[in-house]
Amino acid sequence: MTNPKPSALAFVPFVSVDNMMKLVNRIGVEAVLLELADYIEADFKRWPEFDKTPRVASHSDEGVIELMPTADADNYGFKYVNGHPKNMKEGFQTVTAFGVLSSVSNGYPILLTEMTILTALRTAATSALVAKYLAPKGATTMAMIGNGAQCEFQAMAFKAICGVDTVRLYDIDPAATIKAVKNLSDVGLTVIACTSGEQAIEGAGIITTCTADKLCATILTDNMVGAGVHINAIGGDCPGKTELHRDILTRADIFVEYPPQTRIEGEIQQLDDDHPVTELWQVMLGQAAGRTDARQITLFDSVGFAIEDFSALRFISDKIKEHPFFEPLDMLADPDDPRDLFGMVARRK
Amino acid sequence: MTNPKPSALAFVPFVSVDNMMKLVNRIGVEAVLLELADYIEADFKRWPEFDKTPRVASHSDEGVIELMPTADADNYGFKYVNGHPKNMKEGFQTVTAFGVLSSVSNGYPILLTEMTILTALRTAATSALVAKYLAPKGATTMAMIGNGAQCEFQAMAFKAICGVDTVRLYDIDPAATIKAVKNLSDVGLTVIACTSGEQAIEGAGIITTCTADKLCATILTDNMVGAGVHINAIGGDCPGKTELHRDILTRADIFVEYPPQTRIEGEIQQLDDDHPVTELWQVMLGQAAGRTDARQITLFDSVGFAIEDFSALRFISDKIKEHPFFEPLDMLADPDDPRDLFGMVARRK
Repeated sequence: MTNPKPSALAFVPFVSVDNMMKLVNRIGVEAVLLELADYIEADFKRWPEFDKTPRVASHSDEGVIELMPTADADNYGFKYVNGHPKNMKEGFQTVTAFGVLSSVSNGYPILLTEMTILTALRTAATSALVAKYLAPKGATTMAMIGNGAQCEFQAMAFKAICGVDTVRLYDIDPAATIKAVKNLSDVGLTVIACTSGEQAIEGAGIITTCTADKLCATILTDNMVGAGVHINAIGGDCPGKTELHRDILTRADIFVEYPPQTRIEGEIQQLDDDHPVTELWQVMLGQAAGRTDARQITLFDSVGFAIEDFSALRFISDKIKEHPFFEPLDMLADPDDPRDLFGMVARRK
Repeated sequence: MTNPKPSALAFVPFVSVDNMMKLVNRIGVEAVLLELADYIEADFKRWPEFDKTPRVASHSDEGVIELMPTADADNYGFKYVNGHPKNMKEGFQTVTAFGVLSSVSNGYPILLTEMTILTALRTAATSALVAKYLAPKGATTMAMIGNGAQCEFQAMAFKAICGVDTVRLYDIDPAATIKAVKNLSDVGLTVIACTSGEQAIEGAGIITTCTADKLCATILTDNMVGAGVHINAIGGDCPGKTELHRDILTRADIFVEYPPQTRIEGEIQQLDDDHPVTELWQVMLGQAAGRTDARQITLFDSVGFAIEDFSALRFISDKIKEHPFFEPLDMLADPDDPRDLFGMVARRK
């Protein structure tokens, strides 16, 4: 005897990597980044409504695996994400991720999606959204140090959201720069390959650092950073991993997502626990000042926070209603009588 | 231009609800419970090797959503599980779950599986495994108060692992008891439907309480519990949710999975924080005493711990190598060049 087909309740919409790529291309990368930034900004502006916790990290010698949950009154979301700097040399992604959005009311998942691509998109959208508040007025040139998997997403986000028209690329591995130049060759940006970090930052009002070494590196030294720039520091995102010289931090006004997490994982792990930082949601709500002076150095000490993933999950959950790039996954047991789980299994012989 | 097919690295084996039912029936429920108990016992006996943390819970008025991660040197596992007592009345499962097993070395998931059924199995296997150490010698009759989704799994586990031959069932809702009697009618157990908790516990050496109300209930009062029984208390598993009268706790020797979690979620939330409890892994290793006296009341204050789910994930990951009841899921982005995530997306047009 076989069961009838599982009911609709048993199925969770699943967005595969292939469907995510189709969805992004159907909408367009820049349109996705612009709309994602809107979702993220809307959620930052209702920051106090969220159940917040620092991510739950499991560290090993080779990397980290993290769970990043958050919830509002209606939805619960979490992301699984790994960070393994050594992966790239072995042919694996440094970062892979997937995520789930659920109903708070009954606890049932309503979306399972790949988030390797989606994380790249939300990280870039967040960076550009933050720069919209902090970058010096009229900055149209961005230096990008580190030309790995995140690089082109950042470039596209700053183009779409901040009006950047020129990117100056540098990576210690020239092959990474060549890859990025190729991918950005026909997107409407002026792309300049540089042979040093110093060269990359020439004339740049925005400096993005995005390297992946799992150690305290000094991608930017103090004398490289002049007045009136915005630094978008992406790569320092776990304990023991930083990119900026400490002296830059003490000269900059520092903006963060969620202080309890950033103090553990961000550039500011190099500073005292009470070093003043400004929370970005307060800037977006007008409750705290962003850039106040053209000569100020602003620093977004980005580590990525669960609410950004929540926004991204909301975005995808909405988008697959218009563009059905998903497949239903038989992930939830749904017996006719909820108490008859055993009978459902026994009858499936 | 379309990409070639994703590489094998992009795919994660997924065990759907339907495949889990097929797998369980192919192996046989009792064989699954016996082997699962072996996996769980093996992991309890290497308890100090695990990275342990209390589960990460997000509570709302209507229920809870939890993430339960743990890891050893080789694998990382986590379970997503909800608990919504009101769900049953609305036609949803009180508890649904899914889980992931990953490689610690590169962070890639190696298994995604439904865990609603698997959690029911591992909870029952754990209960019976613990009773093997704690129940009075020769106890062959078990009272079961609460005849919901977990009931028959418990009965089968105690039959397979502890030699229980008689179960005495009681539920405040007679329909639940009728369902359980029917499901257990031809499994080789003597099944007695009772009309009160008092009647159910007559002559029972083992008492299992497994009710789902999200509040402090008193399923067992002090005068119901005589000397020389083992109580398997399953249902008290979140803050504010207990099943036993406090006076029973002070007369019993209490055994727990992971004290920091049980003190928050278990029956012992009714006691002082320093009330003595014994950790089960120490009993299994012979480092602490289990039952020492025929007249002793032993209590397993079960809340469920991440290591049991880890064992269950290991079990399924091993079993699908012999019984390929899974489908490959395109869940991980895997560009030819790990740094060329953007190019992979752009080329999928």
